[in-house]
Amino acid sequence: MTSAKPESRSHPVTAGVDLGGTKIQTVVLRDEEVVGSARVLTPQTGDPGDVIDAIVGTIRASLEAAGASDADLRGIGIGTPGEVDAKAGAVLLAANVPGFTDRVELGPLVSEQLGKAKVRVGNDVSVGVLGEYQRGAGRPFRNLLGVWVGTGVGGGLILDGKLHDGRGAGGEIGHMVVRPGGLRCSCGRRGCLEAYAGRASMERRARSLVKRGHKTSLFKIMKKRDRNRLSSGVYARALAKDDRMTKKLIGDAAWALGIGIASAQNLVDFEAIIVGGGLGDRLGQPFVDQVGERMTPHLFEPHRPPEVLRTELGDLSGAVGAAVLAGG
Amino acid sequence: MTSAKPESRSHPVTAGVDLGGTKIQTVVLRDEEVVGSARVLTPQTGDPGDVIDAIVGTIRASLEAAGASDADLRGIGIGTPGEVDAKAGAVLLAANVPGFTDRVELGPLVSEQLGKAKVRVGNDVSVGVLGEYQRGAGRPFRNLLGVWVGTGVGGGLILDGKLHDGRGAGGEIGHMVVRPGGLRCSCGRRGCLEAYAGRASMERRARSLVKRGHKTSLFKIMKKRDRNRLSSGVYARALAKDDRMTKKLIGDAAWALGIGIASAQNLVDFEAIIVGGGLGDRLGQPFVDQVGERMTPHLFEPHRPPEVLRTELGDLSGAVGAAVLAGG
Repeated sequence: MTSAKPESRSHPVTAGVDLGGTKIQTVVLRDEEVVGSARVLTPQTGDPGDVIDAIVGTIRASLEAAGASDADLRGIGIGTPGEVDAKAGAVLLAANVPGFTDRVELGPLVSEQLGKAKVRVGNDVSVGVLGEYQRGAGRPFRNLLGVWVGTGVGGGLILDGKLHDGRGAGGEIGHMVVRPGGLRCSCGRRGCLEAYAGRASMERRARSLVKRGHKTSLFKIMKKRDRNRLSSGVYARALAKDDRMTKKLIGDAAWALGIGIASAQNLVDFEAIIVGGGLGDRLGQPFVDQVGERMTPHLFEPHRPPEVLRTELGDLSGAVGAAVLAGG
Repeated sequence: MTSAKPESRSHPVTAGVDLGGTKIQTVVLRDEEVVGSARVLTPQTGDPGDVIDAIVGTIRASLEAAGASDADLRGIGIGTPGEVDAKAGAVLLAANVPGFTDRVELGPLVSEQLGKAKVRVGNDVSVGVLGEYQRGAGRPFRNLLGVWVGTGVGGGLILDGKLHDGRGAGGEIGHMVVRPGGLRCSCGRRGCLEAYAGRASMERRARSLVKRGHKTSLFKIMKKRDRNRLSSGVYARALAKDDRMTKKLIGDAAWALGIGIASAQNLVDFEAIIVGGGLGDRLGQPFVDQVGERMTPHLFEPHRPPEVLRTELGDLSGAVGAAVLAGG
């Protein structure tokens, strides 16, 4: 019998993966620092196996960048859209990720390819907010609301220093009602915050406005950049060109976010609001300031507003948060 | 030196006081049971001393009803409107209570008259929700939202089994925005939940409708009952008589509560919603059901709605909760 060598792994690392419909962003943390990262486009073949392979590929690439090997891996965290079965490490109904319409045993499948490393799976927005809370803009606070503005609008609550998701479905700030009977939301209801501030809804609205004869440079910019969707970058460019429709769409998004966030603030009394997500990060401080301005008139205690901040980790929030989830 | 007799008080009791603008309701608890109670109208003289004396009077009367004396008092809890300085046991800006417009050292003043008993002071709605959580309809749950519908609309959040009020100003569900640009609220803003569901706003609306020629039996009932305000009882009677304006006002209140509660639910994912307060308790189950029906269409997870319940303790929620606050 040989003696145990618990300290033989001198430089343990943790991997964090942010799985999205468009890209997979992975980081490796050592001593709470990002020491390696990798990013690839999400395979669009529709075979979940290809997505799993791509995830494993980014983890290996990040480990290599960090000068580490599979054996140094203390754990892996994965943030994913869709419904998460945290116990099993599985994901359900991640409609945005090709091939993930049915249940996928994400954790076990990734673990298998990486020396049975322990894998924890969480909701993409929750882990993004966790990342900002522990390693980003949220560090000074114990009670905060993260509002992730992307294709949809998601949220995450940190209460008394812990991620709070109620019975597992909390954080759906995108489906707070900001205008009863208002615009149709992708959830089928009317007047949700997401119907005004989610990129998918904004694009539907832009297309319908164009059909009705309104002018915009949004779709010209989209084609020029070889996209088939109005990405956050497309909005940012159109805004820089003072495009009128874009200003209206972004203005309405800020209006709706102002109402939803103020209502959340009046109910829960957060210390800070962090605005992130693809659109939030891309539009940056001017957008975050606009949201704060639209929030203030609805605050019950306007003399004691929450701090409204942009993310610090930007598009790494999710991957870093996933690593934090795995103990990194 | 005599030996200590820690067990000499064989039947310790705790008092709980619900201080309101109209009445003071007090209970005494022994072994978590209400063993005595007393209720008086709140003195309208404008002298805080008279209110303090009335509070002390109800405590003495409740003790007597319980067969206990000042010496048995383990502690006193008081729920009060206004801003609470919990540490000092003081209350600020309780505009509804005559003479309480300035700071009142409520705890110390009551303590002085009752053998220096320990007094804890809390917000009236918070202690009401605490009462229902620990001794009423909320006992089966660890995460719930209490919505108190009275002169205004207040709320209290129980998260992971603890009252959560953020930085001290949480629970203001009455000032969630349910219709941007909607009715004027008593807080000065527009479209707050309270502007539709608070009794004071509803009365302003009723008076303005009557001025514009609309018919209602509300004010006839009010006069018949010798009131100068549309109390919860007046609404209940008019509703029983199928008064059209009352049905409209109560229907709008349920509509607004449905939106506000659904938004709160989508954000926090509670197990249960408890609807209490003067109006909630008086209108009872039919009203609570109506609120639940108006909530459901806005739920992001309609297949997993929270339970929507009325209070169990009714108009004793506040007094029992205050006693709980004091360890009873």
